Amino acid sequence: MTLSIGIVTVSDRASQGVYQDEGGPAIQAWLTRAVIGPWRAVPRLVPDERPMIEAALIELADTEGCSLIVTTGGTGPSLRDVTPEATETVCQRMMPGFGELMRAESLKVVPTAILSRQTAGLRGSSLIVNLPGRPAAIADCLKAVMPAIPYCIELMDGPVFDTDPTFCAAFRPKRK
Amino acid sequence: MTLSIGIVTVSDRASQGVYQDEGGPAIQAWLTRAVIGPWRAVPRLVPDERPMIEAALIELADTEGCSLIVTTGGTGPSLRDVTPEATETVCQRMMPGFGELMRAESLKVVPTAILSRQTAGLRGSSLIVNLPGRPAAIADCLKAVMPAIPYCIELMDGPVFDTDPTFCAAFRPKRK
Amino acid sequence: MTLSIGIVTVSDRASQGVYQDEGGPAIQAWLTRAVIGPWRAVPRLVPDERPMIEAALIELADTEGCSLIVTTGGTGPSLRDVTPEATETVCQRMMPGFGELMRAESLKVVPTAILSRQTAGLRGSSLIVNLPGRPAAIADCLKAVMPAIPYCIELMDGPVFDTDPTFCAAFRPKRK
Repeated sequence: MTLSIGIVTVSDRASQGVYQDEGGPAIQAWLTRAVIGPWRAVPRLVPDERPMIEAALIELADTEGCSLIVTTGGTGPSLRDVTPEATETVCQRMMPGFGELMRAESLKVVPTAILSRQTAGLRGSSLIVNLPGRPAAIADCLKAVMPAIPYCIELMDGPVFDTDPTFCAAFRPKRK
Repeated sequence: MTLSIGIVTVSDRASQGVYQDEGGPAIQAWLTRAVIGPWRAVPRLVPDERPMIEAALIELADTEGCSLIVTTGGTGPSLRDVTPEATETVCQRMMPGFGELMRAESLKVVPTAILSRQTAGLRGSSLIVNLPGRPAAIADCLKAVMPAIPYCIELMDGPVFDTDPTFCAAFRPKRK
Repeated sequence: MTLSIGIVTVSDRASQGVYQDEGGPAIQAWLTRAVIGPWRAVPRLVPDERPMIEAALIELADTEGCSLIVTTGGTGPSLRDVTPEATETVCQRMMPGFGELMRAESLKVVPTAILSRQTAGLRGSSLIVNLPGRPAAIADCLKAVMPAIPYCIELMDGPVFDTDPTFCAAFRPKRK
């Protein structure tokens, strides 16, 4: 079972070609450094529209079989930002600890970190995690949550994989 | 566009005149020190009844055009406390980072901070934030979240305003 | 009014007799050390099925009159883990501070603490709190949240009780 990771860029302007998507490639570059062993990236680029974000997440989870789906963009308070709502709609179970930790980490850098509405949740055996839009903040957040992700996917009967311990060490508690 | 701030005191006893509202005036005094430039306070006093709290929040957001609406009272576990539920009902999008930070700050003072059910969310272009009932706790919470509020309102296309940096400095990340 | 505490073990295997329930007895032993004065434990053992978890929680709250109900198990990302969803379904009001604090405490020990989906909430005058499955993690979480629980139950007009201050001191803020 090869690991598939969906990468969803949510941006009106990038999806219209007004500017280049930076978040998606930044995530893919970070994951290429972090993940050991074979994996494939399944990228998508959608505007800030709930039905289109939801459709992309559902396709990546149900059709593409992505064990992990990360989004970038659409998590702030701007009127068009609806990525967390789309995420919650398609997930059957939520993972509040991801948003809490990412905000706590970002709060060490900027007091406006509380404006991030990032969430995470589970659809079937896919873990969906909202990341921020800016590449620097993406790296901070991935560094914070990635150590727990291989074990999470394993608990959901997904593919077993590991990360480069010199870059971002995965953690697995000893099972009794 | 003048900044309007709604201040909703939620209290059975204060609304019946059994005792004087202390939370509302404490918030208004704090904001008078913090906010630079013209703004108007739009105070409301309602009992701990969901329909009345919801009606006050809707009126302040939709009719009075308040960019910020703060509540005081009704966020604990007492049987009559329903301010967070009323807030969630009228908001289209939630802001979980506000409650997380306010509880984390209060937790430095008292272990019972986890009993606070404070939340925050967005209705149209209004930010609604639940504050505690006691004036001392109100100041602690405002000091924690206020630095992010001017930027939040700006992101929602609301009025641009600033705070007194010697009292509580507003923060705006540099946009790329 | 004697204090009743419901203890719900959620586990497919323990409920089938495949192995012995360890979480429930660990909670009861911890509470026996912590709680001062008379109280009765009302234990239940159910599989990881939402309707059965919900039925147990409702019975303990509405029929048995438990002021506090703690669960153990079913809060991770495994496909069968649905204890937080069952808890949210039966609660009228949620207490987000409990999950936040328990995850923050566990995060000091293991980075996989963010995978815990533990929550807490109120049904009538009962406080329901999800604890982890492993006895060591149960003790860490109880130690973190117990100081606030006697005051919480008092605010809900439940029985007044205290804890052994040399083991885990309860806290009550001075009311004005």
